[in-house]
Amino acid sequence: MKADPFNRNCGSRQVIDRIGDRWSVLIVLALAHGEQRYGELAQRIDGVSQKMLTQTLRGLERDGIVTRTVHASVPPRVDYALTDLGRSLLDLVAGMEAWATTHLGEVEAARARYDAR
Amino acid sequence: MKADPFNRNCGSRQVIDRIGDRWSVLIVLALAHGEQRYGELAQRIDGVSQKMLTQTLRGLERDGIVTRTVHASVPPRVDYALTDLGRSLLDLVAGMEAWATTHLGEVEAARARYDAR
Repeated sequence: MKADPFNRNCGSRQVIDRIGDRWSVLIVLALAHGEQRYGELAQRIDGVSQKMLTQTLRGLERDGIVTRTVHASVPPRVDYALTDLGRSLLDLVAGMEAWATTHLGEVEAARARYDAR
Repeated sequence: MKADPFNRNCGSRQVIDRIGDRWSVLIVLALAHGEQRYGELAQRIDGVSQKMLTQTLRGLERDGIVTRTVHASVPPRVDYALTDLGRSLLDLVAGMEAWATTHLGEVEAARARYDAR
C-alpha cells in the first residue's frame, strides 16, 4: 500500500509532524555542518528549554534522523550528528527556513489586516 | 534586522510552526488544484476533526495563505483557495509530503530498532 498522509491511518502524518516541528527544523539545520555537543545545540537554538531540546533530540534519534554518541570522558561528552536519512532532510528544512524568513513580513502584514477587520 | 529563526524573538519560528503543521500541509496540498468547499476539505483530509480543520483554516487565512469566500446561497457556501503567498508554499509542502511518504519505511524501521534496544 502506498503511503498517503491524506489517509488517517497512514504513519506519514506523524512523519510530517516530526519534520515540520520548529525544534526539529532548527536542530537539523544546526547539524548541517557536522556534529555538535548538546551544549552547543542548546546555545545555538536560542531559548529552547532543556526539556524540549532533550525530547526533540530523542524523537529525532528514535526516527533515525540523528545519532547520539556518548564519549567516556569526565564529564561525559554527548555528541549529536545527522544520519544519512537526516542529511536527506537538509534541503527541505533549509527551504522551510528560507520560506519563513523571506515571507515573514508578508505573513505579519496579513495578520495585522486580519486582526483589524 | 534579518529574520532568523535561531533567535528566540524572531517571528519566523511561528511561521515554521504554521507551514510545518500536518493540517496546514494537507490543506495547502488539497487546494493545489483550485478552490474547495469546507465540506470537500473535510472529506479529503480523512479523520480531521471539525475543530482542527476550522482552527487551521482560520490560522491560514489570518497568515495570508488562504482566502475564505462566503457565497450568499441557501445554505451559504464557503470556499477556500490559496493566495499567491499560499501558492508559493506548494513546492515546499509537496516536498514534505514526498519526504514523509518516501522515507516512512526507514523511519518506522529506525523506531523499531530504537524501541528494541
